[in-house]
Amino acid sequence: DPKLKVFTCNANPQLAKEIAEHIGVPLGNAQAVQFSDGECQIKLNESVRGCDVFVIQPTSAPVNEHLMELLVMVDALKRASAKSINVVIPYYGYARQDRKARARDPITAKLVANLIETAGAQRVITMDLHATQIQGFFDIPVDHLLGVPILAKHFAEKGLEDIVVVSPDHGGVTRARKLAERLEAPIAIIDKRRPEPNVAEVMNIVGNIEGKTAIIIDDIIDTAGTITLAANALVEAGAREVYACCTHPVLSGPAIERITNSKIKELIVTNSIPLSEEKLTDKITVLSVAPIIGEAIIRVHEELSVSKLFD
Amino acid sequence: DPKLKVFTCNANPQLAKEIAEHIGVPLGNAQAVQFSDGECQIKLNESVRGCDVFVIQPTSAPVNEHLMELLVMVDALKRASAKSINVVIPYYGYARQDRKARARDPITAKLVANLIETAGAQRVITMDLHATQIQGFFDIPVDHLLGVPILAKHFAEKGLEDIVVVSPDHGGVTRARKLAERLEAPIAIIDKRRPEPNVAEVMNIVGNIEGKTAIIIDDIIDTAGTITLAANALVEAGAREVYACCTHPVLSGPAIERITNSKIKELIVTNSIPLSEEKLTDKITVLSVAPIIGEAIIRVHEELSVSKLFD
Ligand SMILES: Nc1ncnc2c1ncn2[C@@H]1O[C@H](COP(=O)(O)O)[C@@H](O)[C@H]1O
Ligand SMILES: Nc1ncnc2c1ncn2[C@@H]1O[C@H](COP(=O)(O)O)[C@@H](O)[C@H]1O
Repeated sequence: DPKLKVFTCNANPQLAKEIAEHIGVPLGNAQAVQFSDGECQIKLNESVRGCDVFVIQPTSAPVNEHLMELLVMVDALKRASAKSINVVIPYYGYARQDRKARARDPITAKLVANLIETAGAQRVITMDLHATQIQGFFDIPVDHLLGVPILAKHFAEKGLEDIVVVSPDHGGVTRARKLAERLEAPIAIIDKRRPEPNVAEVMNIVGNIEGKTAIIIDDIIDTAGTITLAANALVEAGAREVYACCTHPVLSGPAIERITNSKIKELIVTNSIPLSEEKLTDKITVLSVAPIIGEAIIRVHEELSVSKLFD
Repeated sequence: DPKLKVFTCNANPQLAKEIAEHIGVPLGNAQAVQFSDGECQIKLNESVRGCDVFVIQPTSAPVNEHLMELLVMVDALKRASAKSINVVIPYYGYARQDRKARARDPITAKLVANLIETAGAQRVITMDLHATQIQGFFDIPVDHLLGVPILAKHFAEKGLEDIVVVSPDHGGVTRARKLAERLEAPIAIIDKRRPEPNVAEVMNIVGNIEGKTAIIIDDIIDTAGTITLAANALVEAGAREVYACCTHPVLSGPAIERITNSKIKELIVTNSIPLSEEKLTDKITVLSVAPIIGEAIIRVHEELSVSKLFD
């Protein structure tokens, strides 16, 4: 059988290490370094000839560095005769630029998909895409993993009672429903409305949250404006306590300050994006996606091997 | 005739402004900005429908930022129905990763060419590629401009006498010959040899430089190690004075310090890459490539218009 090898660049080496451990293989010997002028260089220090290779690299900040490292790594693997090149992008950067919201907007999420294919990737494993349509931006197989089962397990183990799962906006209702089903809880929705132009938005809560333990769920928490305003509105409207969770902790700009000063009791995130020391405050709990990504890689590797029988 | 429009991102807006002025058009109204998490965003604030568009963007440091800005800009122009998208990359980043120097090396200069085509560029205007083979990495037309005429004009106007043009290595002899022909001067070559492993390199000078005004020419000056060692070796071997010149002043790491402390009397560069205040020491003279790029754009635009007659 072709050998399975796992490589990483610089975006999340810790996650890559955990994934390799889960699978039971050593992490491939390669480095992504920089020349003096900032150009990135990939050093592939072992043979990949005939191997099924998986590269773990979320395209989190600095997104352009991490994307380029990934593309150059794929180029190196291709030229080194890897049998299959599978890119594992737990967090897909630029996912929010997925449509022409205004005239003459680029669609960068599609551009990135094209760049990844052009470099030579043959399969993508990713998690909780901001829009599931992004799967269709690729002409290669995409395995789309979900964070909800991991988050649900964490909340179930806490033994919380009288839960309501809250979507912070209309776009997130499907995701909230999935978590609610697993927790056998009802849902509520925050319905932001601006009564008149240049007047502050009003947070209307659709659904019963009074006296309940609210769990707000989103895919990405970036500057944390939406989620902290939602948490505070829920407490004001009578929620007993408020938890928040997301798959991808982007946490840029004022995010940590806002979360610290908010009514959020605990924020549960995954390690799709690594958090620096100063972002890891007491309020934040990190769950590992290494087991589900590891399982997905094992499954894909088996599939690649089985299909070989029919070649 | 389709309208000619010139746009820029953030790599060299000053050069773009000079080019637009040379052509006699206003610089297009667009911005490359960043979201809070560092993802770049292109705002195209005017219509490009049916226009021949030229985007000025050297992929100088930070190379991955500038490359991504360019790709996203091209994506936006494509989706906004530009008639033709022409990218002007005065300095082509990653040009030195143009072959597998070691086993399992990527060929990033080729990857970048593919990325630019994938984004939707239809033509490239560039200058002094580190290897002219890079033209062949593209399947779209490449206009390859030379810095030598601009540099030669500068030296001719100085009225220097008894010149010898020096190539700092074997790879640069063709370039040195081109400058020497224009200055009606002989050439010399620095022949670096390492007598034994782990022994310092010896600089042998091939050619007569005694009592002469030496002009060292290279395409890129990066950390300036080669060029400053060469200058000092030339003075030691009896050159009267030493000038240095290049098209692309990358000048990373210790470059400025090395140049300041070297025997180089004056370093002449072009504005293909913008120099920050602290890099612009007294020793450095910057020549503008705006006129030759402007002329190239006018010519390409005429060509695009003429070919329309035969469509
Ligand atoms: N990195 C980013 N940070 C903040 N906003 C973004 C980012 N990328 C895209 N957007 C904007 O977010 C909106 C898409 O978000 P959504 O409506 O939740 O799908 C669009 O208006 C985008 O312009
Ligand atoms: N950005 C860079 N900075 C320094 N060296 C580089 C860079 N990119 C490529 N190289 C190396 O430079 C060599 C190519 O230079 P050359 O022999 O002059 O074509 C190769 O060994 C590359 O690995």
